[in-house]
Amino acid sequence: MSAARTEVEQWDVVDVSMELHSPGNPFDVRPRAEFRLDGSHGGRTRHEVEGFYDGDGVYRVRFMPEEVGTWAYRVTGPDGAPLAAGAFDCVPASGDNHGPVRVRDERRFGYADGTPYRPFGTTCYAWAHQPLGTQERTLAALGNASFNKLRMCVFPKNYAFNAAEPTRFPFERHDDGTFDHTRPDPVFYRHLEAQVVALQRLGIECDLILFHPYDKGRWGFDRMDAEADERYLRYTLARLAAYRNVWWSLANEYDFMREKTMDDWDRAFATVARYDPYGHLASIHNGTRMYEPASLALYDHHRPWVSHVSLQHWDVQQMRQWRSEWSKPVVVDECGYEGDLPFRWGDLTAEAVVDTFWTGVVLGGYVSHGETYLRDGDAPIWWAQGGDLVGESPARIAFLRQVVESLPDDVAPLDDDRRHSAPTLGIEGSVYLQYFGRHRPAYRVVELPDDTDFSVEVIDTWTMTSTPAPGTYRGPSRVELPGTPGIAVLARAAE
Amino acid sequence: MSAARTEVEQWDVVDVSMELHSPGNPFDVRPRAEFRLDGSHGGRTRHEVEGFYDGDGVYRVRFMPEEVGTWAYRVTGPDGAPLAAGAFDCVPASGDNHGPVRVRDERRFGYADGTPYRPFGTTCYAWAHQPLGTQERTLAALGNASFNKLRMCVFPKNYAFNAAEPTRFPFERHDDGTFDHTRPDPVFYRHLEAQVVALQRLGIECDLILFHPYDKGRWGFDRMDAEADERYLRYTLARLAAYRNVWWSLANEYDFMREKTMDDWDRAFATVARYDPYGHLASIHNGTRMYEPASLALYDHHRPWVSHVSLQHWDVQQMRQWRSEWSKPVVVDECGYEGDLPFRWGDLTAEAVVDTFWTGVVLGGYVSHGETYLRDGDAPIWWAQGGDLVGESPARIAFLRQVVESLPDDVAPLDDDRRHSAPTLGIEGSVYLQYFGRHRPAYRVVELPDDTDFSVEVIDTWTMTSTPAPGTYRGPSRVELPGTPGIAVLARAAE
Repeated sequence: MSAARTEVEQWDVVDVSMELHSPGNPFDVRPRAEFRLDGSHGGRTRHEVEGFYDGDGVYRVRFMPEEVGTWAYRVTGPDGAPLAAGAFDCVPASGDNHGPVRVRDERRFGYADGTPYRPFGTTCYAWAHQPLGTQERTLAALGNASFNKLRMCVFPKNYAFNAAEPTRFPFERHDDGTFDHTRPDPVFYRHLEAQVVALQRLGIECDLILFHPYDKGRWGFDRMDAEADERYLRYTLARLAAYRNVWWSLANEYDFMREKTMDDWDRAFATVARYDPYGHLASIHNGTRMYEPASLALYDHHRPWVSHVSLQHWDVQQMRQWRSEWSKPVVVDECGYEGDLPFRWGDLTAEAVVDTFWTGVVLGGYVSHGETYLRDGDAPIWWAQGGDLVGESPARIAFLRQVVESLPDDVAPLDDDRRHSAPTLGIEGSVYLQYFGRHRPAYRVVELPDDTDFSVEVIDTWTMTSTPAPGTYRGPSRVELPGTPGIAVLARAAE
Repeated sequence: MSAARTEVEQWDVVDVSMELHSPGNPFDVRPRAEFRLDGSHGGRTRHEVEGFYDGDGVYRVRFMPEEVGTWAYRVTGPDGAPLAAGAFDCVPASGDNHGPVRVRDERRFGYADGTPYRPFGTTCYAWAHQPLGTQERTLAALGNASFNKLRMCVFPKNYAFNAAEPTRFPFERHDDGTFDHTRPDPVFYRHLEAQVVALQRLGIECDLILFHPYDKGRWGFDRMDAEADERYLRYTLARLAAYRNVWWSLANEYDFMREKTMDDWDRAFATVARYDPYGHLASIHNGTRMYEPASLALYDHHRPWVSHVSLQHWDVQQMRQWRSEWSKPVVVDECGYEGDLPFRWGDLTAEAVVDTFWTGVVLGGYVSHGETYLRDGDAPIWWAQGGDLVGESPARIAFLRQVVESLPDDVAPLDDDRRHSAPTLGIEGSVYLQYFGRHRPAYRVVELPDDTDFSVEVIDTWTMTSTPAPGTYRGPSRVELPGTPGIAVLARAAE
């Protein structure tokens, strides 16, 4: 039994370890801890946290302190016997540590410390199950790109272009190939955690997919019973919830999982809510395109435990309807991928993907990237295995991010189509970012206020250039445009 | 008083003229006629038809016989006094005369004689108000193109790039510039009718727009009172309903007409239903994009007098929802125009327009064209004035029409996304037309039946080429594709 008195940064991980030997399956023992901020009571200053068995006789409890000050904790065993106690000092966050991402309002995310956060995500479902060299290349590619969210799976993937057997699994495997769902594999999880931390160092939120259908019975993780699901979720939460960059994606393409019902998803959300003390973002991602009658099968995203909408849809023109429908931030986590695979979800031009990103963003939503190029031999394909980014959209998405992050945090989609002749993100009276998409007028009259001078830039979203329009503008202003698709105009009130 | 006994083709116009002099406004006198097919009673073999004053003391009654046989008629004056009587022989239609277009089922149109009709329309709102030379060029351009429907207005147009004063109006004009809504101008209408007939000779349905907002009080036709509207409609119907290629579009962008209410439109539809003895197609066309909350203002297209849906929307990906919503044929009469005008509705690339046509058609709907290029000096712009077609989409739309018309009439959108990986028009088991749009896979597996050999063509919708894929195919079939956008695949069961 050991516990370190130490200094911990706000939103960093406190890891309390202890040795304990008990008869039977050691995973059946789950220590419980209470963490309490000195001098305060209730609210977010007192937490119940479940611990986990980490192998070799060692149990751990992990905790993410959200408030600065001195925290005390007590850990008890399943019989209520004290296992550990201690205290630590939580000091203010520093550097790039802004805490977990929260939902700020009907449309925005933000870090816990108030720093704006706008997701520009990508997708590498099974990257953490690939050979280590590939994983290193994935992290290098992410380091050179500009994505700040990654969708990835806990379970391995069995799908087209994804047939390789991983070396380790979340559970111990019997000699006959079946898995013991009562015995998670701590080595597997330690590696997963290391990669979550590696993403965190790159400033990338880990949108962790807890279930998915790309198994089809090969390993059976898509068809475990309710008890195994619950054990798996509690173990995963006990290990990972203390990492500030974790988001819970209950499932990818849940509607393709024939073995699960809506009640199962309700129960899974309830388990997450109960064992995640911090209320990380939680969502569930559909597979069908929400065309009727498929839309009838959509999980009810109005439910309070769904923090934001994580959609698959290929037509982001409908962003306003979705925002209006759910009054939650909408992330189109799958809009079709840049590539040329023989699948409708993986064969878009980079131009189409870039257009989709700009459209979704100026309409007040968020869009995620994926890349699916047929490559020679065994070269990894980014969307599933990671590896290298070879497409043309990531640089343009980085450019979009740069443009959007140059705007004030409180820009909002200006949905007044009578006033604005193109989708516009901005603040009435001070800044307007209009995107023309497939429209390519010879010029446009941009509606600016009469009482302020504005500077205007003409942005080419493909060449990633921004050209100042000569002079200053006020009132309805004719802006000459190049007559090509993919143009945006950014007007800012002069200083 | 005169009446000719003659032979008339089915669905041609019988024109009974008579002279009558009465005190007061001659337009206040409206002869009424009964046309009856010999040897039969009721149904479509007996019609009440209203006549009209054609100037110079001449009244006319026009009638379109829909059944072959001998028809007798009697015309009476407003006091019930007999004005004319006679008979004529209706003989079977010949040549290109297939009768009026009807709605055949929830998705299809067809001519009255059973010939399939699929609208591939274009738009020249005010072409009939232009100088005669321009009108001749318009007809020549239509003769060289492949459009089979034209949207055009009765009233002249006052709008951007449309400021010229027409030479004649539907009403007599006073010296002070106001109009006498009780006195239509027969010369104006004779010209309008001549152009309706000119379209008919070109095989073009005339989608005649009865009201529109592009007046803004300049002439006041957008804000006449209910009595003037009713007079105008009855006069227009009495003159034009007997032309088989007329469709009634109650209004263009009715929601931009602030002076009208939904009740006004209900009343206008009722007037059309009462005074059109033949039940020509009738629709009403919205201006806003149906985004919320604009959609709340949409006229209720479920009403029985709306024969088909004439939509403005720029996102035809939503075609299935619309078909499902209304269970009527859906024509997207405005999807954005090819051009470079400084307006969001008139600045699309030809590529975008062609993609929209293919998408709308394979999803089971219909799409209309317009062209809006900024041109030198006073050169007419097609969408309003007609003149010349200079864009690149008309040839591709003609190619699409040719492909679609090579298919059996009973092809239908195959909405099973699980089976078909792209929007598909076809007949299960015998023919499939799939369109990949912005998708550009290196190859695709097309799901064909196991029990039949199919031939496959790869169609490039932009280069207008169709390349046979080597060999025959059955079952799930890999088809190599060029990896560019705008590709379709047509698979037909081998003979």
